[in-house]
Amino acid sequence: MDGICGHSRDEFLEMARRFHGYPAPGLIVGGFMVDLALGALPKGILFDAIAESTACLPDAIQMLTPCTAGNGWLKVVDVGRFAICLYDKHGGEGVRVFVEPSRLEPWPEMRAWLLKLKTKSEQDERTLVDQIFDAGSRPYGVQRVRLPEAFRKKRSKGPIALCPSCKEPYPQLAGAACKACQGESPYD
Amino acid sequence: MDGICGHSRDEFLEMARRFHGYPAPGLIVGGFMVDLALGALPKGILFDAIAESTACLPDAIQMLTPCTAGNGWLKVVDVGRFAICLYDKHGGEGVRVFVEPSRLEPWPEMRAWLLKLKTKSEQDERTLVDQIFDAGSRPYGVQRVRLPEAFRKKRSKGPIALCPSCKEPYPQLAGAACKACQGESPYD
Repeated sequence: MDGICGHSRDEFLEMARRFHGYPAPGLIVGGFMVDLALGALPKGILFDAIAESTACLPDAIQMLTPCTAGNGWLKVVDVGRFAICLYDKHGGEGVRVFVEPSRLEPWPEMRAWLLKLKTKSEQDERTLVDQIFDAGSRPYGVQRVRLPEAFRKKRSKGPIALCPSCKEPYPQLAGAACKACQGESPYD
Repeated sequence: MDGICGHSRDEFLEMARRFHGYPAPGLIVGGFMVDLALGALPKGILFDAIAESTACLPDAIQMLTPCTAGNGWLKVVDVGRFAICLYDKHGGEGVRVFVEPSRLEPWPEMRAWLLKLKTKSEQDERTLVDQIFDAGSRPYGVQRVRLPEAFRKKRSKGPIALCPSCKEPYPQLAGAACKACQGESPYD
């Protein structure tokens, strides 16, 4: 089975190039994970998504579901695991899809890549991508999870104030100045 | 001037519906901000992006630039300001675009929305969107900034280990167990 969420291998690789810049192995893995999660979720519900890593997975979710970083339906909770979760945004019942390392034996190039057993220059990218597609949904486990209240409620940012320091609008709940002027600015 | 990065108003609203789910006012504002920043950036450089809010801005960047949440070129630094930055990923010189509240007087519906002076039910969405397009790039300031080293280097995650608790692969630098098993799991 080559398809990801109804897209052929070539279609998915083209979508990956357009959105992600290149068809990264992690994005293809993420595609199969989203496919599995969607299949395990009850039909017709409104769901939110979690990516447990910043690497590739947020884009697989954004390419294949309505959840994006900017519409509030995708949350990146960077615990560093290569796993995703889709969950009912009201009840919080969800499906988590994760890598099962013990299932990777039949696909050694994929296993070596996921566990970083080879350097990038030792990898055979073509074989890697072939193995990810050949493996399909088999290397992944599916787990029922439940998300706590904080992930199910839309929190209001409260009133807006003008920061006395930078003069820009900011959520007043942050305090007497915006967070950037409180020392969290990313700029030099 | 109605256009955003070469897209007509109708084209942009359609792109917004497809990617973001609906043509949110904040996404349109973000579109004009990205347009301004791209125009102020030297041509032909490789750039990364920062969104200073989780609301809408990450999607404007993802729709109009090659930078995404999953390819590492977009970073969300949630200091709560409605501002974006595009910067040279090698040198760190960047362009920051932000809201200048004092410039909003000619567009009262837009001003009321940005400063949350009206409830959602008091807002006139059609007038709001019209005013955002009418304002174009005029309500925004442009500032030269510089990003520190941490934003310019690609950090390696280091070697991968198997977590003794959940048995999943994780970056060994996190410690003896993955971050989720150390108490940062989002699940109940």
